Amino acid sequence: MERLVTPAYADTIEYWDGEADVIVVGYGIAGACAALGATAERAEHADVLVLERAGGWGGAAALSGGFVYLGGGTPLQKACGFDDTAQAMFDFLMAAMGPGADEARVRLYSDESVDHYDWLTGLGVHYVPTFHPDPAHTPPPGRSLMYSGGENAWPYNQMAPPAPRGHVAQPPPDTPADEQHVGDRGGGYWLMKVLTDRAGAAGVRVAYDVRTDRLIVDRAGTVVGVAAVADGRVVHYRARRGVVLAGGGFMYDDGMMNRFAPELARKPGGVVEGNDGRCIRMAQALGADLGRMDGCEVWSTAIAPELLAKGVLVNEFGQRFVTEDTYPGRVSQFIRYRADDRAWLIIDDEIYENTELGPSSKGLKRTRPVAVGETAAEIEAELGFPEGSLESTIALYNRHAENGVDPVFHKSERFVTPLRPPYGVLNLSGRAVGFTLGGLRTSLDGEVLHVSGEPIPGLYAAGRAASGIPVWGYASGASLGDGSFFGRRAGRHAARQG
Amino acid sequence: MERLVTPAYADTIEYWDGEADVIVVGYGIAGACAALGATAERAEHADVLVLERAGGWGGAAALSGGFVYLGGGTPLQKACGFDDTAQAMFDFLMAAMGPGADEARVRLYSDESVDHYDWLTGLGVHYVPTFHPDPAHTPPPGRSLMYSGGENAWPYNQMAPPAPRGHVAQPPPDTPADEQHVGDRGGGYWLMKVLTDRAGAAGVRVAYDVRTDRLIVDRAGTVVGVAAVADGRVVHYRARRGVVLAGGGFMYDDGMMNRFAPELARKPGGVVEGNDGRCIRMAQALGADLGRMDGCEVWSTAIAPELLAKGVLVNEFGQRFVTEDTYPGRVSQFIRYRADDRAWLIIDDEIYENTELGPSSKGLKRTRPVAVGETAAEIEAELGFPEGSLESTIALYNRHAENGVDPVFHKSERFVTPLRPPYGVLNLSGRAVGFTLGGLRTSLDGEVLHVSGEPIPGLYAAGRAASGIPVWGYASGASLGDGSFFGRRAGRHAARQG
Repeated sequence: MERLVTPAYADTIEYWDGEADVIVVGYGIAGACAALGATAERAEHADVLVLERAGGWGGAAALSGGFVYLGGGTPLQKACGFDDTAQAMFDFLMAAMGPGADEARVRLYSDESVDHYDWLTGLGVHYVPTFHPDPAHTPPPGRSLMYSGGENAWPYNQMAPPAPRGHVAQPPPDTPADEQHVGDRGGGYWLMKVLTDRAGAAGVRVAYDVRTDRLIVDRAGTVVGVAAVADGRVVHYRARRGVVLAGGGFMYDDGMMNRFAPELARKPGGVVEGNDGRCIRMAQALGADLGRMDGCEVWSTAIAPELLAKGVLVNEFGQRFVTEDTYPGRVSQFIRYRADDRAWLIIDDEIYENTELGPSSKGLKRTRPVAVGETAAEIEAELGFPEGSLESTIALYNRHAENGVDPVFHKSERFVTPLRPPYGVLNLSGRAVGFTLGGLRTSLDGEVLHVSGEPIPGLYAAGRAASGIPVWGYASGASLGDGSFFGRRAGRHAARQG
Repeated sequence: MERLVTPAYADTIEYWDGEADVIVVGYGIAGACAALGATAERAEHADVLVLERAGGWGGAAALSGGFVYLGGGTPLQKACGFDDTAQAMFDFLMAAMGPGADEARVRLYSDESVDHYDWLTGLGVHYVPTFHPDPAHTPPPGRSLMYSGGENAWPYNQMAPPAPRGHVAQPPPDTPADEQHVGDRGGGYWLMKVLTDRAGAAGVRVAYDVRTDRLIVDRAGTVVGVAAVADGRVVHYRARRGVVLAGGGFMYDDGMMNRFAPELARKPGGVVEGNDGRCIRMAQALGADLGRMDGCEVWSTAIAPELLAKGVLVNEFGQRFVTEDTYPGRVSQFIRYRADDRAWLIIDDEIYENTELGPSSKGLKRTRPVAVGETAAEIEAELGFPEGSLESTIALYNRHAENGVDPVFHKSERFVTPLRPPYGVLNLSGRAVGFTLGGLRTSLDGEVLHVSGEPIPGLYAAGRAASGIPVWGYASGASLGDGSFFGRRAGRHAARQG
């Protein structure tokens, strides 16, 4: 039986269905930027062919909120009145993206972040100089900048000067008004539309509905093409300079999820079912090494960040366990990994009635409390919490909140007010979803590294098929930022070969 | 440059320095049992050669406490008055060894555990029918049975009928008295001495100081030998039926630790520096798949289990976070992964003065409190805890302890008494060490699986070079149990080939 994902030898291929300097597998953020990096790198432009298994461009990126994590003093940050430095960005990322964050990778990404912003905007990615100051999943339409990683909350605000670095693309200025707010077109859509439009204009060819299954190598072990399935037929494409694997993570492969990230198995958060780890496995079959396969971005679909910041979040023991006003993705990770996906938010009438939920929380507006009580003891009894546990937690919180402070979890004073009965409890349990961060080990130029530590000739990877900037921790925009930055580098390096 | 760990082709080998039916790499628990499984499997006995990079037998196993996790009603369990069933063992292991524990593997291991006990004792492994009922790292000399995974503590005591399953070998009865208590000879030494003596008696050949670096394959991809370094010279050994990789985990490879288990990087807990992941990487170079590479057994070297069970363990927020009387390895994992390796144990004079520490805690007898105070507030001030945090925790604990119960973390009533001032605090921070659990993906017969899901012909793995029974959670004895059980199966299956 022929092994799926097992490489084939080039001298056994009888017919090449196509050929290009650089073949890119996957047309999400990493693939689009790899294609752009490859075409822009030589005067003659490398000839690039993108193979995408779906019927259209965009991947998970186009369906996302569209944050790109950029900093160090981007024009958008400056226009919104924020100072930032590459060092502050580096310090935050090293603290927040690990344990195990790759220092050299984070350094390069931080040092060249302003350049990367310029490259993106030079291609036509459009940002408007408006900052969104409030907790939210994503900023409302028309606002481009937001804190997206808990930079301004404890503990990260103690580790690096905070700056907002979540950059969300807006419809380009020449977009007809009636096309701007169609359906769910968010920042990710506009980002990907610009990038793929520009790639098309640069001559990048794209074949859709082509599922790449195997790498093709010569007898020396250099990757020289791919085998794929199109229209139910096996097809072969030759790559003269290199192959860039940019087919995303593995959250839709049950086996890989069970073996590497079982806490999120059966709860994928991505919406692209093609993210089945195939790119990772194809390269593993050539002896490629991996990085931190357990890491996952996590998001609790039950969280309204606006309420979360003001409430008191407790675990099954009635204890607080994370600063409520930090990045909701961090809160979600703590709920999933430190509280066994069991969490409840205690609020009061004032918070419930007088907190306005933004557009990104609109689906949560009808969330009703699972318990209401005049005393903590009533709620404990109603929900089966240990006697005295909530009472003790609320008493300690209120004792300090009367003075407007939270010395235990250091919530910003902006969100600290004593809880007043009646209390209400929202159930945030069992709602963690996410996407995978683990993947192929690569050099800073996107070369896939063999377990020996050396590059596998002709093979590149970027985006969530690779292990990148976020290895375990996360900030919104870290994945699109990493995928675009290192995708571009991978395409550029591949185009220089041969 | 030749790639380390990259396979070589058999037809390029000019001279074979040796040959055997089955070659076993590593002479720890998995290697010894693979060798025994291979020799015992045919009337003619397979010819087995073990290649060990150290100068003697034993690996990490011989230096360990020597627990083997066995149950389902072993003769030792019965002799000590405990009922157990394979189902109870399965239920516990599925709850405690994951997330991501392999149900089929745990089922087989539980169902055949009594057989495995009989096999071990049939070889001469010696247990004495004495149960050690108290918290400890390992039982005192002369006692063979202990709870070694928190089976009798919350929450596992709610999930499966508890039974002690930690089996610790004792010196065989014919051991001269003056050889029984030499140096640090513990259960692991006696276990390995018996197994390697028996392997030697069965004709197993062993070459020491031979470091295996590469696999040798034929042109069809079947593993037919290994390349190694001995006396500074490259040597080649041909395997007629199979190669069993049993060279242990990767805690002594900084790169792998940083990429897969960074929380324990720079703090290996094993004592065998040869555990550098080489076996894992050699097989990865052939496209072998991996399992849960982040999982680690964790042990806090600061814990005296006898004190821990009676005290109140708090994190940096002054909160309890794990049941204190459960398996110390579980407590250590919680300290490392849920409390950022920051933990303090609050005790009182009664506990400090009147708790006898067993031999396995002797190194901790001189541990002095880092703070002593007449009130919780004094200790908070002294150690910089948030105001009211310890006070609140102690008040809640004592409120229930006055009634002899702990409804929050469900500590056994046996260990619950109110804390009385003056309080003392022991610092358990920053002392987590451990060994890796992640490794090669294998079939239940120890065949190494390619990323395609199919076995790599001729290649086997067992012990901590493979992902086995404990994938993230742990119980003492799970690794030696898994290594011996699946090592034996791997050797047996290999011997049947060819």
